[in-house]
Amino acid sequence: MKNGILYGVGIGPGDPELLTLKAVRVISECEIVAYPGVSSDECMACRIAGQVVRGFYDKTLISCNVPMTRDVKRLEECYDDIADTLEEQLSNRKDVAFLTIGDPTLYSTCMQVHRRIMEKGYTAELISGVNSFSAAAAALGISLAEREEQLHIIPFSTPINEIRNLKGTKVFMKPGKDREDILVYLAEVERKGGTVYTVSNVGLPDERRTKGIAEIPDDIGYMTMVLCQEVGN
Amino acid sequence: MKNGILYGVGIGPGDPELLTLKAVRVISECEIVAYPGVSSDECMACRIAGQVVRGFYDKTLISCNVPMTRDVKRLEECYDDIADTLEEQLSNRKDVAFLTIGDPTLYSTCMQVHRRIMEKGYTAELISGVNSFSAAAAALGISLAEREEQLHIIPFSTPINEIRNLKGTKVFMKPGKDREDILVYLAEVERKGGTVYTVSNVGLPDERRTKGIAEIPDDIGYMTMVLCQEVGN
Repeated sequence: MKNGILYGVGIGPGDPELLTLKAVRVISECEIVAYPGVSSDECMACRIAGQVVRGFYDKTLISCNVPMTRDVKRLEECYDDIADTLEEQLSNRKDVAFLTIGDPTLYSTCMQVHRRIMEKGYTAELISGVNSFSAAAAALGISLAEREEQLHIIPFSTPINEIRNLKGTKVFMKPGKDREDILVYLAEVERKGGTVYTVSNVGLPDERRTKGIAEIPDDIGYMTMVLCQEVGN
Repeated sequence: MKNGILYGVGIGPGDPELLTLKAVRVISECEIVAYPGVSSDECMACRIAGQVVRGFYDKTLISCNVPMTRDVKRLEECYDDIADTLEEQLSNRKDVAFLTIGDPTLYSTCMQVHRRIMEKGYTAELISGVNSFSAAAAALGISLAEREEQLHIIPFSTPINEIRNLKGTKVFMKPGKDREDILVYLAEVERKGGTVYTVSNVGLPDERRTKGIAEIPDDIGYMTMVLCQEVGN
């Protein structure tokens, strides 16, 4: 009577063809799929995986919705609840695939659940996925870093004084309400001859790319990244 | 009479199952495969892709060896030669898959060739792959960044004064002879309560992981990454 295993599965940035062979196999082999969202109809991760995993919608799909908040206490409670729900399945000897857009080790809910399930004494594994910033750079046809250059992945909420001295390419992720400071900084970068790009919904039918500060969309949504490269830096 | 297309294909960090569906399809559809190495027998990218792409070794395999040097002029000449060789194939209406370990937009030879082929007026596309640092974090069972944390990808050759003020997780890649400074810095991190990991040959049969500065292998090879996380940072 072995317990089930929790797999935190990265399904890549959006294009269903960017799932790895391993992601497809693991999701196929799991009876239970946990997804980040309110309903499987509206869940992007389900829409992506559903296109390449045979019999996806015949599986037991469990909603693991996390509210869009920075209230840590509320988030922790939510992760606890999700872990309890999934523990029930694992103790019933069912394997669970927890879907995550991009890669499970970067800004994912999945990792919170992974840790809790490990603490409860179950086995949990992480299946790497393609990062959304890699797909954004590929869509733009640019390198993130070459030779001795650096790459920095930074949330939009990062204070500007922590950003100014960074050398190399900066990718801003997780846009929120705090965009004003960043826009001032990006304008500065451009004034000095640097380049500012945005990529929204990378790999999806409504992918949108811009170059130059004047083109930055007013509505920077959750699925938007900003990339910037300074001159001689 | 259309020219061929050059695909820069990321094949992920090492585990053949971490190729994406797209990478497998594109390599399968290309008559010509260009690989980074002296011979296909010794080329790790070929060994990885060869395990999951049917008929891989029946394709025309072209060696694109780049010397391990930081001599920019010598490197540039080498990229020029590779671009010329591949142009011949493209102008003969053959599609070419240029294999690259990890993702083509991060520290890849592929991008140098991509740019040259575009400048010659051909079509070139990039197929994203799983980054090796994602696989390293997954193997360690740790997050690279959560919530408002930052992630920094830095070559070993980066001056320590540029590293000291970085907040969040640091991943050191591209180890060379210049490791002494980094070791001093890592010891500092550990003394302050931070954690230092290394992962070598991630996803390959000889994968090796260490935790703690005392465990760092003496022979940090090309396929080794160092990850470090400070306390309260």
